[in-house]
Amino acid sequence: VNQQPAVINHRIVLARRPTGLPDDETWRFEQVAAEEPGENQVQVAVDYLSLDPAMRGWLNDVKSYAPPVALGATMRAQGIGHVTASNYPGIAVGDTVLATTGVQEIAVVHGADITPVDTGLAPAPTWLGTLGYPGLTAYFGLFDVAKVQPGETVLVSGAAGAVGATVGQLARIHGCRAVGIAGGPEKCAWLRDDLGFDAAIDYKHDDVYRALRAAAPGGIDVYFDNVGGGTLDTALAQLRMHARVVICGAISQYNATGPVHGPANYLSLLVNRASMTGMLIFDYQEQFPAATARLAQWYRYGQLKSREQVVAGGIERFPAALRMLFDGANTGKLVLRLDHQG
Amino acid sequence: VNQQPAVINHRIVLARRPTGLPDDETWRFEQVAAEEPGENQVQVAVDYLSLDPAMRGWLNDVKSYAPPVALGATMRAQGIGHVTASNYPGIAVGDTVLATTGVQEIAVVHGADITPVDTGLAPAPTWLGTLGYPGLTAYFGLFDVAKVQPGETVLVSGAAGAVGATVGQLARIHGCRAVGIAGGPEKCAWLRDDLGFDAAIDYKHDDVYRALRAAAPGGIDVYFDNVGGGTLDTALAQLRMHARVVICGAISQYNATGPVHGPANYLSLLVNRASMTGMLIFDYQEQFPAATARLAQWYRYGQLKSREQVVAGGIERFPAALRMLFDGANTGKLVLRLDHQG
Repeated sequence: VNQQPAVINHRIVLARRPTGLPDDETWRFEQVAAEEPGENQVQVAVDYLSLDPAMRGWLNDVKSYAPPVALGATMRAQGIGHVTASNYPGIAVGDTVLATTGVQEIAVVHGADITPVDTGLAPAPTWLGTLGYPGLTAYFGLFDVAKVQPGETVLVSGAAGAVGATVGQLARIHGCRAVGIAGGPEKCAWLRDDLGFDAAIDYKHDDVYRALRAAAPGGIDVYFDNVGGGTLDTALAQLRMHARVVICGAISQYNATGPVHGPANYLSLLVNRASMTGMLIFDYQEQFPAATARLAQWYRYGQLKSREQVVAGGIERFPAALRMLFDGANTGKLVLRLDHQG
Repeated sequence: VNQQPAVINHRIVLARRPTGLPDDETWRFEQVAAEEPGENQVQVAVDYLSLDPAMRGWLNDVKSYAPPVALGATMRAQGIGHVTASNYPGIAVGDTVLATTGVQEIAVVHGADITPVDTGLAPAPTWLGTLGYPGLTAYFGLFDVAKVQPGETVLVSGAAGAVGATVGQLARIHGCRAVGIAGGPEKCAWLRDDLGFDAAIDYKHDDVYRALRAAAPGGIDVYFDNVGGGTLDTALAQLRMHARVVICGAISQYNATGPVHGPANYLSLLVNRASMTGMLIFDYQEQFPAATARLAQWYRYGQLKSREQVVAGGIERFPAALRMLFDGANTGKLVLRLDHQG
């Protein structure tokens, strides 16, 4: 018989729900025949995968904003790739697209769930970071949830991460004072010298409480929290009247095996008539195009800078790359590059 | 020489800042000559004093929304009394008035800081409770901070206290489902049978988590928190999407000698895009007359019921009466009656 050799897909599936930090036992590497696209579907060869702190939450078998990844299922992830086959009008082979591809080399997705990516404006990894969900998270968190005003002081933790770095830069663009908390002198220097933060606090070496007093003597109007834990408590202790705390994440707590560290200083909300509000980017879907256009405009004119740390080596590197997020090893958006043969 | 005998004033001053629950060593009972009113001042013989959980906070030497009571100063308190001398236009001897009198029998206050009290509508203790600051706190917390909507489910802790009992009743008036948490079967029966709460949970005997599941199977839209601690965590675990948590107080934590119990379930704010906002009644001063008129209207027509627990015996009973608040000994507004001779 005359048959084409099957195209091979490599993927990472959830083998065991982790306790604490996901280790190599958490995952299983699989080699399977690539799926063909059905009606209205598109086949994408994935070039870059986004690594996100939120992934840790998807591994827990608890009710949350998204269903947990099922045991044996391909790990959920955002990816950018090129279209290798299309049954969807308006999407052609060769197009560069963004989609929830999962951690695999060849994904089949519905054409309606795909976003075209303009690699003429910015390289693909930037579309997973500053111009993607992390950038949009910063945008809606600051402008919609916190309703930040020019002249206010904005504090952001996880400031050298993809969301945090954008929060500080958007705050500056908006006429605010931007203070970032990050781990290590290199990250802090990057925030101050390259991104224009007014101050950066190194939580690994500084006394955060005192450093924050010095960086924001009048207190904090907006605290954009990506880390939780003791940093949230320190920020709560230095709120100004009518301050807004945006709860975007709590990376310090995601791998905790004991109880979550609750913010003991939460009564500062009462003293200061302040608020603490949780946010999720998916609520703003209808406003994505307009917000993306604004972010792209700032990016084009150099007001908004982006940095990505690209890990090479293909999906086998996914387990180790994910741990880099929790070790604080990355600066800017952490992305995995797939060097697969289709 | 021909001289009138000096009028004697008895007062309670702060002798020592307490650790934990204030004990008798915290206070000093003093007997002094009564002050005469100066220009624009009014002398008031105090008949009733308000006992409030917030008093505990005023004893700590920390920055808060109000300065701490100084050592040796008369303890701060709201009181209702009758005017015994007036140098202020429009206020006459014999008028019944509300003011920050302090814990003493005879107070001298500025005439501008006095509110006339209509004892024709309600007895004086009610004006310290449902028609006073506690009622206003419930009103603005529900309608301004939480922006409660008809049909929503409102949970309130400390539900048998002055604020909580009003929160539940206002929620019912507004067309909401009202669920209260209180200590003991008598308080719970009062909430259900007399005040019309849809459900009452006895935190001393019920499994609060399960009881809340049963009372609000669809989850909570508004949680009005007066107690903090484990109850706040339980409520956070059962929020609905876009829920609002109003932080009004944390009576379970006020006498804690260790660190405050931070809400470990605060990430429910993120999952549910919910908010937690602190409030203080003093921010609404300009709206007091309008809100009081509405509360008085509901009270007049029997839609809003009030209950006060009046402790007799004069200011000597203040230290013991204050402790009743933290023991959960009171139902409704706790008030101290002064049986002084002027």
